[in-house]
Parts: sequence; C-alpha cells; structure tokens
Amino acid sequence: MTWLLNDPADFAREALEGFCAAHPEYVQAVRGGVLRATASPEGEVALVVGGGSGHYPAFAGWVGPGMAHAAVCGNLFASPSASQAHSVVSSVDNGGGVVLAFGNYAGDVLHFGQAAERLRAEGVDVRVVTVSDDVASNTPDKHRDRRGIAGDLPVVKTMGAAIARGADLDEVERLGWKANDATRTLGVAFDGCTLPGQDAPLFSLRERRMGVGLGIHGEPGVREEPLASAAEVADLLVDGVLAEEPSRGAGYAGRAAVILNGLGTVKYEELFVVYRRVAQRLQDAGITPVQPEVGELVTSLDMAGLSLTLVYLDDELESLWVAPADTPAFRRGEVRPSAPRRPPLVEEEGGQEPVPPSSEASRRAARTLLGHLEAVAESAKGHESHFATLDSVAGDGDHGQGMSFGSKAAHEAARAAVAEGAGARTTLVRAGAAWADAAGGTSGALWGALLTAAGGALSDESDETTKEDVIRAAEAGGQAVLRLGGAAVGDKTMVDALVPFLRTLRSEASGGADEAWRAAATHAHEAAESTADLVARRGRSRVLGERSLGTPDPGAISFAVLMSAVAERLGREETS
Amino acid sequence: MTWLLNDPADFAREALEGFCAAHPEYVQAVRGGVLRATASPEGEVALVVGGGSGHYPAFAGWVGPGMAHAAVCGNLFASPSASQAHSVVSSVDNGGGVVLAFGNYAGDVLHFGQAAERLRAEGVDVRVVTVSDDVASNTPDKHRDRRGIAGDLPVVKTMGAAIARGADLDEVERLGWKANDATRTLGVAFDGCTLPGQDAPLFSLRERRMGVGLGIHGEPGVREEPLASAAEVADLLVDGVLAEEPSRGAGYAGRAAVILNGLGTVKYEELFVVYRRVAQRLQDAGITPVQPEVGELVTSLDMAGLSLTLVYLDDELESLWVAPADTPAFRRGEVRPSAPRRPPLVEEEGGQEPVPPSSEASRRAARTLLGHLEAVAESAKGHESHFATLDSVAGDGDHGQGMSFGSKAAHEAARAAVAEGAGARTTLVRAGAAWADAAGGTSGALWGALLTAAGGALSDESDETTKEDVIRAAEAGGQAVLRLGGAAVGDKTMVDALVPFLRTLRSEASGGADEAWRAAATHAHEAAESTADLVARRGRSRVLGERSLGTPDPGAISFAVLMSAVAERLGREETS
Repeated sequence: MTWLLNDPADFAREALEGFCAAHPEYVQAVRGGVLRATASPEGEVALVVGGGSGHYPAFAGWVGPGMAHAAVCGNLFASPSASQAHSVVSSVDNGGGVVLAFGNYAGDVLHFGQAAERLRAEGVDVRVVTVSDDVASNTPDKHRDRRGIAGDLPVVKTMGAAIARGADLDEVERLGWKANDATRTLGVAFDGCTLPGQDAPLFSLRERRMGVGLGIHGEPGVREEPLASAAEVADLLVDGVLAEEPSRGAGYAGRAAVILNGLGTVKYEELFVVYRRVAQRLQDAGITPVQPEVGELVTSLDMAGLSLTLVYLDDELESLWVAPADTPAFRRGEVRPSAPRRPPLVEEEGGQEPVPPSSEASRRAARTLLGHLEAVAESAKGHESHFATLDSVAGDGDHGQGMSFGSKAAHEAARAAVAEGAGARTTLVRAGAAWADAAGGTSGALWGALLTAAGGALSDESDETTKEDVIRAAEAGGQAVLRLGGAAVGDKTMVDALVPFLRTLRSEASGGADEAWRAAATHAHEAAESTADLVARRGRSRVLGERSLGTPDPGAISFAVLMSAVAERLGREETS
Repeated sequence: MTWLLNDPADFAREALEGFCAAHPEYVQAVRGGVLRATASPEGEVALVVGGGSGHYPAFAGWVGPGMAHAAVCGNLFASPSASQAHSVVSSVDNGGGVVLAFGNYAGDVLHFGQAAERLRAEGVDVRVVTVSDDVASNTPDKHRDRRGIAGDLPVVKTMGAAIARGADLDEVERLGWKANDATRTLGVAFDGCTLPGQDAPLFSLRERRMGVGLGIHGEPGVREEPLASAAEVADLLVDGVLAEEPSRGAGYAGRAAVILNGLGTVKYEELFVVYRRVAQRLQDAGITPVQPEVGELVTSLDMAGLSLTLVYLDDELESLWVAPADTPAFRRGEVRPSAPRRPPLVEEEGGQEPVPPSSEASRRAARTLLGHLEAVAESAKGHESHFATLDSVAGDGDHGQGMSFGSKAAHEAARAAVAEGAGARTTLVRAGAAWADAAGGTSGALWGALLTAAGGALSDESDETTKEDVIRAAEAGGQAVLRLGGAAVGDKTMVDALVPFLRTLRSEASGGADEAWRAAATHAHEAAESTADLVARRGRSRVLGERSLGTPDPGAISFAVLMSAVAERLGREETS
C-alpha cells in the first residue's frame, strides 16, 4: 500500500523534488532528472543512469562522486522519455563522452537509444551499457538479453569508480560490460507492490506461495513454489546464482561482491536471517564475500521480496567495487574532497514555436481530432487499473499509468494547439510529442511515434480533409509503429491489433470513414483477444515465455480499447 | 508480514548472527550483543547503546567510529536482560567510563539500571542517558519522561562524535542529555507490524484512518484521525514538533537537524513526497535543515508509519551532528583511519557452578516445582499471541514473546538443575536467572526476580517442604516484585493480581496448599479483570493515559493465567 501521496499523477515528480530538497549538497534538479551538485573536471567521462521511478535508491540515490554524474528519472516503473534523457545528458556532458547505463527493458532501450542517436548527431560520443543480471529471465547463453534488477548497483559502482580514477570512455564502457557479464541475480517475491492511488497490489500470490524469479516492476516471478523457510530461500537463491559461477583461474579466484537486496517490505532483520545462511553456503562453496551489502538497494515500492546478487570478481573488478563512493544513498570509504559547486542551472523548458499558418478546413479537422483525443484520454483514464493489471502479468506494470498520463498530455497539448489556431498536422504532431514525453515506457514511445507520423501525413493548409487523408494518416502512424517497435503480427504486441485495424479501415473505406473506423475497431478487438487469452493463461501459470522483454504486452488490448472509444464518439456525434 | 524466518524463537539471534557475518569489518559478536571490531584507545569513554531487536539500523547498525562502541541486543521489541548488558559493557570498557544510552522504556530502564548498579559495584563508572523525544507520549514539562523513538539517532550520534573528539565521561553525559533535551519527534502509523511466526499484525487501524503519535513497538498511536494526504501529514508532523521550538537566541538561531524516518513499509518515494512539504514548511518558519536524513533509521519491523524529528541546534550540537561517522548503517564524511583490529574475543558463556548438596525431600520438591514450571511454560506458549495482542494495546508489544521465551528458559534450566540433583532452592533460583536472561523486558525482570527470591526462601537440605514453606516462598517472590517494580495495587500492573493472590494463599492455608493455590488463582483472575476491562476500553479508544511508560500492562492478566495453569496441574495430579 502507498499511504502517503497527494495527487497520484504528481507522485513521482513530488518525490524527486523532495529528494532534491533533502540532498542539495549532492544533487540539483534539471528537466528530466538530477545532476551532481558538484562540478566535474573538464574532459571527464559522464556516467548517466536512469529508468523508471519507484526503485529508490536506484537511480537518483546513486548520484555523486565515485558513482553516477546524473540520473534520468521516469515516471513510476516507466522508462523516461528520449527527450528527458537528452535534456539530462546535455546538461552533464563534460566533453569526455557519456555512458548511458540502465536496466535492459524494452522501453528503456527504446528511449535511451533514441536519445543516444540524437546526441551522437549533435556530436556527443555516447555509449550504452545495459544491465542484465536476472538469471530467471533468460538462458545463460543469452545473458545480455536478460532483464536488469539489483545488478544495476555493481555495474554503476564499477563504472563510477573507474571514472573517478580517470578512465577514458572506451575503458569505462569496457568495464561496464565486464561488470555486467560477471553479475548474476536471482530473486523471490511474496507479495506485489501497490501503485500510488490504487487499492490493490499489481499481483498477489496464493496463500503460502512464493514467486521465484521476481522482477522489479511488479512482475511476480517466473514460477510459483510453496513458501519456504529463510534457510530454504537462501539455498534456492545461492543455488541459482552459483549455477553460473565461472571456473576458477583466469583472474577469478573465488571472491565475489555479494548483495542481498530487499525489494521494500522484507525488512532488515529478515535479510540478515537469510544472509546468515548465504554466508555459510558461500563459505562451503569456497567463495569469499567482498564488502557485502545487505539492505534496500534496488526497491520496487512496497513489494515483498528479496534478491541475491553475486559479482564474480577479478582483481580489477574488486578494486572498483571496494573503491570510495559518496552519494545520498550509497557511501563507502573516504572520498576525495568534492569539486566546487556547479553554478545553479537555469531550466530551459524548451519553449514552443508559434503554430504555423493553417486553413479553416484544417482547423476544423484539428477540432475533430481534439475530440477524438479527448475520448482516448477519458478511456485510457477509465481503463488505467485494467491496463496495469494486465501488464503486471505480462510486462513491467507501467502500462496503466503510461497510457493514462500519455493520452492526457496529448489531449492537453492538442487543446493548447487548437486554441492557438493550429491545423490538423501541427495539432497531432504536438500531441504525439507530448504523449511520448509524459508517458515514457515502450507504449509512450510507440504512441508518440504513431501520432507524430499520422500528423505528418496531414496538412495544416489543405482545403479539405478527406476520408482518404484520414486513412493515409492512420497508415503512416501504423508504419511508424512497425518500424520503431520491430514487432510483427503474432508477437503479441500492439501490432497484432494495429495491422488488422488498418487493413479493415482500408477495405471498408467505401462505406464512409466513420463506419470504416468502427469496423476496424471491432476487428482490432477480435485480434487482441488472442493476446488477452495469453495474458489470462500466463496470469494463471505465471510462467514467462522464451522472450522475456515485455512480450506479450497488453498493447494490442489497449489499442483496441482506445480505437473503440473513438468509434463510440463518432457514433455519438452522428446521433447528436 | 514477516516472510523470512526459520524457527520464530531463533529469529532475533539469527538476524544478529547474519548482521555480524555481513559486517566483520565493523562488528564482532559477544554474549548479549556486538562490539566494534576495531580497538579503541585506552582511556576512551565507551558508548553502549541498546534495546530490543526489530528496529534496525537501531541499534547494532550504529556501532563504529563516530558513533557507538557496542550495542546490547534484546529479543524482538524486548529490552535486553541486565546480564546481557553487563556482558557487553564488560567487554567494551576502555577504562574511560561507560555511557549506557537507550530509549526511555520501563523494561530498558529496569535492566540497564540493574546492570549499571552491578558494574558500579565492580568499579566501572557508568552513566545512563535515556532518550525521550516522542512529544505524543507526555506533556512538554515532562520531556524526560517521554518515550524514545527516532531521537535515538541524534542522541547517539552526538555522544559518539564527542567521544571521537576526546570528550571525557562527564562531558559525554552532559552532551547526551543536551541533545535529548533539544530533540522532538512526532509520528503517524497506518498499519501495525507482524511479529515473526504470527499471522496478524499487532494492531490494525480502521479503513482510511491513521494513528497519530505512534510508538516503535507496535503501539498504534495516541489518537486516531482520518487518513490524510501527504501534505496534510507533513503539516501535522511539522506543527507537532514546532510547537516546542525553543525561542531564538541563547545559542539557537533557527538551525535544526531533521530526520524523516520510515518505520518499515512506508517507502522512500513516499518519504520524499512528505519531505518536499516539510522542507517548505520549515523554510516558511525560518528554520534551516542541517544535513537532513530521509530514510529508515529506526524501524519497527514491517510497520507502516513515519516520524519527523527535529533537533534544535546550537553551534556545539551542530558540529557534533555533522561530524564524521562510519558504521554499517550510518556513514557520513571522512572518518580517521580505523584503529587496529581488536583480537577476537573468546566468548565466556558464564559456566554454571555445580549444584550444591541437597536432601531427598528437597529434590522431591524440586521435581514438583519442575512440573509447575512446565505447566507455566506450556500455558505461556499457548497464550503467546493473546498476551502480545493485549500488550500491543497497552504497552510495547513484547509481552507475548517475553513470557513465552522466559518461561521456556526457566523450565529448561530447572530440568537441567533437577537432572544434576539440585534441591528446590537451587532449581528455582536457576529458573529465575534463566527467565530474566531469556525474556528481557519488564516482565522478564519481574518474573526472574520473583522466582529467584522464592527460591531463596526455600532450602536445598530441609527434611520436608511444608505448606508454610510454599507460602513463605511465594510471599518472598511477591515482595521482590513489589520492591523492584515500584508499583502499588491499582496501578494496573502485575501487582494488582499478585497481592490478592498472596492474601488468599495465606488466608486459605488452613484448607491445604493445593486448595489455597486454586482459591488464590481464582482471586487473581478476579483482580485482573479490571485491567482486562481497561485494556479493552483502551483498545477501542486507543488513547494513552497520563502515565505512558507501559501502564496498564497485561502483567496482571498473564500472572493470573499462569497461576491458574499451576492450579489446574495440581488438580490433575490430585485426581491421577
């Protein structure tokens, strides 16, 4: 349960503001996240970490000497947008290049990847290191395709320490991948977390059961087992991470960084009871723990669970693991005196260009689109907890808030554009940008691209917006999603519903745009049903499939729901 | 919910062992608690903190340079025994005197006080500083009679920093009291914690309510209010602690250490949302926060709640608050290099003397007493959650486990003594020592004293144990409780049932010891009823009375229950 909140929509932002107020000696706010309050030497590599909020101390709590230079902070469990990442990196770049480090999730890969492309185009040397320590999420041969959980900490710690010693960009990137390749985590969950403003947790396990292989976004685990004693849980975790212990020699001599991480409501005394057994088991296995950490390092709001991480150390990794660090939430050893305070930033909010000239017909079309976006936003809000529940089974739990926040921002941006006299093209392009920025997550990137591309296919100055224009715009939006998401029909993503929708829209066009839309929405629903079935089946068995990174996602279902909302509004307009 | 445990009776011990395994660079285990792993300079004042377990990082997490030298660790929510405190202090004394610092609770005051007496008799200069920061638990003019909650941290931090600077015993004691007198805390609870092995929390609030004025042992608060927003909660807490802000001048110029403490399941993001408002309010009041701490500093297992602490600083207190510290759970600034490791201790388990010679009659009486102690232990075990529930309303939540652990240890010690051929006196004296040591808490001290004194009134070598001997022993035990506890009939303590029990035992003696015992137990039950009524009424209104330190306690009820268990066994023996 989240007890303390004001408006749930403001929760992540207010938490970040409070964090900055509490730690002015460490951090200062910038659009999209936080930067070190102290200046860094010219030419030093900048380490930028990030991801959704709800994981404190990850990621903002690790900003400071010896660890990260900045954190990009998304909404709860939702990846930050590309625009947020771009803003933070632009503010922190010291001219030595930038490493972007984040957990391996589809949404983060998409948004940070887009930001990296844009920064490279602007002349910044950006490298990307994704953390993928969770042994439950893929097979050993696909270690870099796994998802990132508590392994975020040692990977960030390793790179931050290397930078403090003066490593260059290539070296920092190399060490980041090396640390990730040496890191293994397995977790167990007992009960799900509850998003602010919601009454029920994202998942609940049956009485006296536990989920093995937890995620940190409300994913309950890849299999269920009977609730076990602390010693049995310790054995399960140790066995899981030791299964991939490298052979001794070649630098590794049985020394390991050990992290026993509480997800939120498993408390310290319980962690120590488990650690007691972990230490015995490691000793039996001839492994020496190096500066173990037992506590809350990567949380998931109030989730009940814990995870065990081992980093198999050689001398190089060990010296970086034990090196000093001084951040709000992770302090170790003696840190060199801080560099002088950086001057306070003036926040650039990226003021909007004035709207381009538009025709009366295009402005009329823009007002119609505004109505559709309102219907979409209302429907997304109404289905918020439904989408969140679906996503807690299938994905990473952020789909409800992501769709709700994104569509609300799109509607507001469109209203502002229409009020300024924007045509259909500008209105839709601005709505798309606002959606991506406000929502984050995979769905935020895809819906943002959809609206932006659809808008790009329209005109601000045409004399008429025809049925053919509408269909062409929808098809352009769809193409953008196909290109960006890289999914095909049958992959159990939004595309499963999008493609039949577009096909029907085209084939039924003879009967009028509105009827075509309604028929298309119906077909989208039918197509989404197989995803819904799959989600329901997975909800029962809670076994993730081969592909672990967010598929099946509820995107097909939410797409069908929102297209129906537009169809319903078309129906109401007709009869009124 | 406590998810991770083995045998609940081993929970606190196993947690402490795991803690020591995780932090060998900071701490080493000793009987009764933990010591710094590093040696301290000869003549340095030793700061020994302590209290029940279940509050991590308090208290063991604060052992290290700049903070405490050792922690005495009781069972969950139960004060350590005097023997534990004596063991820890004896191991840590550097010849510069010792400050014992702990929260102001009856059980802790009793046990640490007994240990201090014994240490002083042994030539150690021991001072006692009790923390009493909770504004909800008493009126401003009785600040030192309040209970201690998150204020433990700044008081310990202040004294530890002073010691690191070379302060002598008088100076450390003065600064401890000064810090406590400058510290104010108010807390709010949303849901109670659940003791390991129990299914239900110690308390639950009604839907959409919160308890204002929480304690850290499962006490729900002194009044209930409707659940409020994060901003409203922040206002309530700020108003509560600012009500006792000292006037500016005389050293205080509007600078304050600020601690926003999560009790367990209120998570970091929520704390930051609240802190955002706290910082605004303090700014409005012209108060500058100095190195604020927002996190989990003094917890209460998985309790949902938070508290705000302000320490009104003058220059002296501020310099000690911001001074370096390096402990497992609290690190700040640069600490001087650690002193060399102290040699590992050989744990002295205080081996028992051989049992003194005994007569056949006294050994027979010892076997009878062993049977009674078995009945008591079985009854205490069976009533464990009943006593815990009563105590969560009336006191500090440790009564169930305390009675269960104590009576079990007493029974086991008596069995070992009987097996060695001990007479009645030695058997009962050893049972009493074992009870106090295993149970801790107020009840542990009182029951330990009761059995020890009763045993002392018997003989190991008499030819016969008469009815008169039994009554005299019971009266001697009762006198010890009255002397030690300082309570009178009507104070709603164990004494309320004890005194009528003894009176009836004496007055009904003509009818035989067994009948007299049954009649006495019945009267004890009747006498305990008014306490039961009061507890039930308080359970409804949840308003603590004038006297906040554990009265009314469920001691009268548990006394009556256990005496009845003995009476019942007497009945069974008669008929068999």
